[in-house]
Amino acid sequence: MSKFRLDEVDHQILDMLIDNTRIPFTDIAKKLLISAGTVHVRVKKMEDSGIITGSSLSLDYEKLGYSFIAYVGVFLNNTSQTKFVLERINEIPYVTVAHVTTGKFNIFCKIRAKDTKHAKDVIFMIDDIEGVYRTETMISLEESINDKKRLMHTIFQELD
Amino acid sequence: MSKFRLDEVDHQILDMLIDNTRIPFTDIAKKLLISAGTVHVRVKKMEDSGIITGSSLSLDYEKLGYSFIAYVGVFLNNTSQTKFVLERINEIPYVTVAHVTTGKFNIFCKIRAKDTKHAKDVIFMIDDIEGVYRTETMISLEESINDKKRLMHTIFQELD
Amino acid sequence: MSKFRLDEVDHQILDMLIDNTRIPFTDIAKKLLISAGTVHVRVKKMEDSGIITGSSLSLDYEKLGYSFIAYVGVFLNNTSQTKFVLERINEIPYVTVAHVTTGKFNIFCKIRAKDTKHAKDVIFMIDDIEGVYRTETMISLEESINDKKRLMHTIFQELD
Amino acid sequence: MSKFRLDEVDHQILDMLIDNTRIPFTDIAKKLLISAGTVHVRVKKMEDSGIITGSSLSLDYEKLGYSFIAYVGVFLNNTSQTKFVLERINEIPYVTVAHVTTGKFNIFCKIRAKDTKHAKDVIFMIDDIEGVYRTETMISLEESINDKKRLMHTIFQELD
Amino acid sequence: MSKFRLDEVDHQILDMLIDNTRIPFTDIAKKLLISAGTVHVRVKKMEDSGIITGSSLSLDYEKLGYSFIAYVGVFLNNTSQTKFVLERINEIPYVTVAHVTTGKFNIFCKIRAKDTKHAKDVIFMIDDIEGVYRTETMISLEESINDKKRLMHTIFQELD
Amino acid sequence: MSKFRLDEVDHQILDMLIDNTRIPFTDIAKKLLISAGTVHVRVKKMEDSGIITGSSLSLDYEKLGYSFIAYVGVFLNNTSQTKFVLERINEIPYVTVAHVTTGKFNIFCKIRAKDTKHAKDVIFMIDDIEGVYRTETMISLEESINDKKRLMHTIFQELD
Amino acid sequence: MSKFRLDEVDHQILDMLIDNTRIPFTDIAKKLLISAGTVHVRVKKMEDSGIITGSSLSLDYEKLGYSFIAYVGVFLNNTSQTKFVLERINEIPYVTVAHVTTGKFNIFCKIRAKDTKHAKDVIFMIDDIEGVYRTETMISLEESINDKKRLMHTIFQELD
Amino acid sequence: MSKFRLDEVDHQILDMLIDNTRIPFTDIAKKLLISAGTVHVRVKKMEDSGIITGSSLSLDYEKLGYSFIAYVGVFLNNTSQTKFVLERINEIPYVTVAHVTTGKFNIFCKIRAKDTKHAKDVIFMIDDIEGVYRTETMISLEESINDKKRLMHTIFQELD
Repeated sequence: MSKFRLDEVDHQILDMLIDNTRIPFTDIAKKLLISAGTVHVRVKKMEDSGIITGSSLSLDYEKLGYSFIAYVGVFLNNTSQTKFVLERINEIPYVTVAHVTTGKFNIFCKIRAKDTKHAKDVIFMIDDIEGVYRTETMISLEESINDKKRLMHTIFQELD
Repeated sequence: MSKFRLDEVDHQILDMLIDNTRIPFTDIAKKLLISAGTVHVRVKKMEDSGIITGSSLSLDYEKLGYSFIAYVGVFLNNTSQTKFVLERINEIPYVTVAHVTTGKFNIFCKIRAKDTKHAKDVIFMIDDIEGVYRTETMISLEESINDKKRLMHTIFQELD
Repeated sequence: MSKFRLDEVDHQILDMLIDNTRIPFTDIAKKLLISAGTVHVRVKKMEDSGIITGSSLSLDYEKLGYSFIAYVGVFLNNTSQTKFVLERINEIPYVTVAHVTTGKFNIFCKIRAKDTKHAKDVIFMIDDIEGVYRTETMISLEESINDKKRLMHTIFQELD
Repeated sequence: MSKFRLDEVDHQILDMLIDNTRIPFTDIAKKLLISAGTVHVRVKKMEDSGIITGSSLSLDYEKLGYSFIAYVGVFLNNTSQTKFVLERINEIPYVTVAHVTTGKFNIFCKIRAKDTKHAKDVIFMIDDIEGVYRTETMISLEESINDKKRLMHTIFQELD
Repeated sequence: MSKFRLDEVDHQILDMLIDNTRIPFTDIAKKLLISAGTVHVRVKKMEDSGIITGSSLSLDYEKLGYSFIAYVGVFLNNTSQTKFVLERINEIPYVTVAHVTTGKFNIFCKIRAKDTKHAKDVIFMIDDIEGVYRTETMISLEESINDKKRLMHTIFQELD
Repeated sequence: MSKFRLDEVDHQILDMLIDNTRIPFTDIAKKLLISAGTVHVRVKKMEDSGIITGSSLSLDYEKLGYSFIAYVGVFLNNTSQTKFVLERINEIPYVTVAHVTTGKFNIFCKIRAKDTKHAKDVIFMIDDIEGVYRTETMISLEESINDKKRLMHTIFQELD
Repeated sequence: MSKFRLDEVDHQILDMLIDNTRIPFTDIAKKLLISAGTVHVRVKKMEDSGIITGSSLSLDYEKLGYSFIAYVGVFLNNTSQTKFVLERINEIPYVTVAHVTTGKFNIFCKIRAKDTKHAKDVIFMIDDIEGVYRTETMISLEESINDKKRLMHTIFQELD
Repeated sequence: MSKFRLDEVDHQILDMLIDNTRIPFTDIAKKLLISAGTVHVRVKKMEDSGIITGSSLSLDYEKLGYSFIAYVGVFLNNTSQTKFVLERINEIPYVTVAHVTTGKFNIFCKIRAKDTKHAKDVIFMIDDIEGVYRTETMISLEESINDKKRLMHTIFQELD
């Protein structure tokens, strides 16, 4: 769908940034045998076109005392409330992901909490939003995979 | 649970890195009125202690032709196969997240695909893993929230 | 239940029309060694008795940009609203089939949409009808069979 | 997705054929103030490009003794059997529609039968296919809408 | 729980009546080598004590045009309405059995109807009772066993 | 569907027998102002044509120590085993009703038992039949309606 | 069902033991104005008749590091394995309660674990028992009531 | 989590009390070769720190006429009512355990009743609490394990 066309140099730059967002542009330039200015221009263009939307730090939540992960399915009284409820959910920082979904739930969220007791509080915050009529929770016993890098590399390999 | 104790300067450094992983250490230093060397030492210490585990690029998947998101619940024949199946799932780059869960599913995955047809292929890859006896799929109609930054800021505010 | 009795000539005419609704009556007549007038009279009689209710064009929806098919189960607040809700659903052209059903749903619909985003809009239209209290959606990954002709031929073979 | 571009004349021809597949081309020509030859060429082109894939007769199944409609959800032992099972299902003429689906079922079928007893026989035929491990049936109490014409007209209005 | 104790003669009388409620008391008497008066007294006593509560005719519902059997699970808004709703259900003659149940349903009914259309009407009658908030229907494809006689004989064999 | 036509006299005879299967034919004759012989002939004819299939005694199961009623849904490994499993179920006298059903169960049974412990034994008998892969039980807390007479009277009123 | 009849003195003794199992018999004797020997005899008789089966210490599991409670529903391949599986479950000390149940599960357990990770290990122990084909887990967010004393007092009040 | 540290003597004392809460302190002292005063001090300290919260009598409920056990899942209209509903549930002595849970239920209770009829009354008491919108009941056919002692011994073995 993107009108903007990435060429092989863009892919190689992205491949390096995916592995380490903090890699200096001079290092990228050296490896690709191009100037640092070119790297800068290319990255800028990918940011302007909206392909690169930012970067995020990866922290060890367990070390920070947030080892509890749960998925919460939300049933609404009426789907016309979807936008309103999502805005309220957006005010709860413990919700890191939320989707409008097909199937039995109207909205499906991922939450991170400190422990069972804290998770209960977060779930109750969601339950208490006007328009939410019930929630169902599924608890993660282990986060086995959380890795977008494999997908990103695959996308650029496919595009080449 | 972390034995390593973060002080307020660490929190302020993290707060800035969370918003922009590529911010130069000299900028952080200037804002906090400390030396760039100190920033470097602090970040290094947080990396060594495992609090910071890396950084990741945020791309616009829709612009890259990957607009289809689904959650796939996996039923195993037997939980003794969990580790084996997770290793197989880990070979499918379109699976970006996988959890061992309570409730009706044994494993719960998030996948990104190009379209309905591609999603079918990815789901069938999971279905065909030895030990998987059924899957159930819930399709995302809209990814409304995907933001760990709010949580990260909240964690460091709480710790202060 | 039909009082009207079809004879073997009717069956042979129907068999040809099932395969090609646009076949000229003169072609049918030639094959059956009867006059075109007879064909005309027979078809007219089957239309008047309500056996033949019309004909419909088969288009390639995918080529027309409508590749998304879903089944939507509708729960009503009260079955006394069934007729009213069906009239509202009937105003949504993206709903091509709707049934009053046994089991967990009150009404069960088939929809065709352009893509995930459009499907969401159509589902929300249904959800917003007064009297609808929830919907559940099941998405088609592939329309493998859509063929009434086999059934029609079978019916007339059985009747012979 | 279609490379072939339909113009307004094509849409008007399709609009007339949708309502009556047996309408003579001379009638279409008269209404659109073009020659019958042009109509013929246009329809031919739409057939060659695969937009028009055929036409089908609409019969009153109730009058023909087939008043029983059910939806049958099929669970497979393994999705690798999907293609094989669909080929077996395709040999049962009472199955008029079959989809590979997300959600709890692997395959979802629509069947038409004479009565409860006949429906049982058809369901048992599906159940007995190798690779099918269970089916669940939902019975239609009334086919309230079965109409693709509204959608077709809408598609061409949108395209204009 | 019964204070009233049945002896072997009672059991033998019951065994004969179970097989044929219209058997003359003189026949029973002859077989058991007792007087018809004794049979009469014994039956009267069993009726007075409430062990025998009546007799019912067995008709072939299919021959009478009532071949459609369904089980309807009823969800109430509130169990305090159970008694009221059962009284309303009791006014619908097509409901032959109704239970207050554990599990997902509050009330569970068996209905007999003429055909699919009639069944829909009966289900809608139940759905329209005040206090009923939803129903779920399961259709019988075949009544394979309907026989209390085996149980009755077993009870009296056990008691001997 | 019955070819045999009942007239009003038949209906009146049936109406009386429904209420009391043991009513003497002379009583029926007197009320209808016909001869006892006519009553006899009519009843015989209805028995021969299969409309009347017998009669059954109504006992108070609670007084007999059988106060526990449950519905047991049976899942089969394969529907081809339906006939075989029903024959095995038919050997368990505590099963008074069994249906082949649509929906999630393959077979649906009604059982009567002495108490919780006995019910467990009966359920385990069903579970242990070859071909049965799981059962689900729903327990009756109260048998509120068990009355075919209302339906029978309604049928004959409708026929008049 | 107990043949052994408790009198009011027994009830009063039980009422005191329920509140404090370690209360000295002399204290009970003083309060009831009977001899300590009588208390001893009465308690002995209630133990011999099996009414009193023992006593148990109440510990604060949270203080002992066991704050995680979950209910685990177990599906068996076949109910004939129930006894065998229960013996295996009985070897897992983290399972404190297990029932054979009606409804969707064959066996229903309560477990106590240290945390999410430990709970996963316990659930996997159950899953790995031969004959267990799946489990479903429901996690307790708060144990709000765990009190048999109210019931015990009620029983003896009712008996008086 | 407990700040209070138990040493091996505490564990040995607890091990003996777990098996018999009524064991005299002099018996414990003799076995551990310490003074009865030390036992007293140790137990007092464990009570004061909240590790030992009491003791409870084990009665044979079946002998007392309470042989019916059920699990009741409670759905609330809104989780903000959780506290209020738990207070009402707490007034029903037949509810011995209640948890706030994840999954489909908001509250999950264990009840003990005399028989099916009594269970119905208890379930209806819960259903009639304001804020409860539905309940689902699962009946125990056999309480196979109810034993906290194994867990307690395991905890103290692990701690050593």
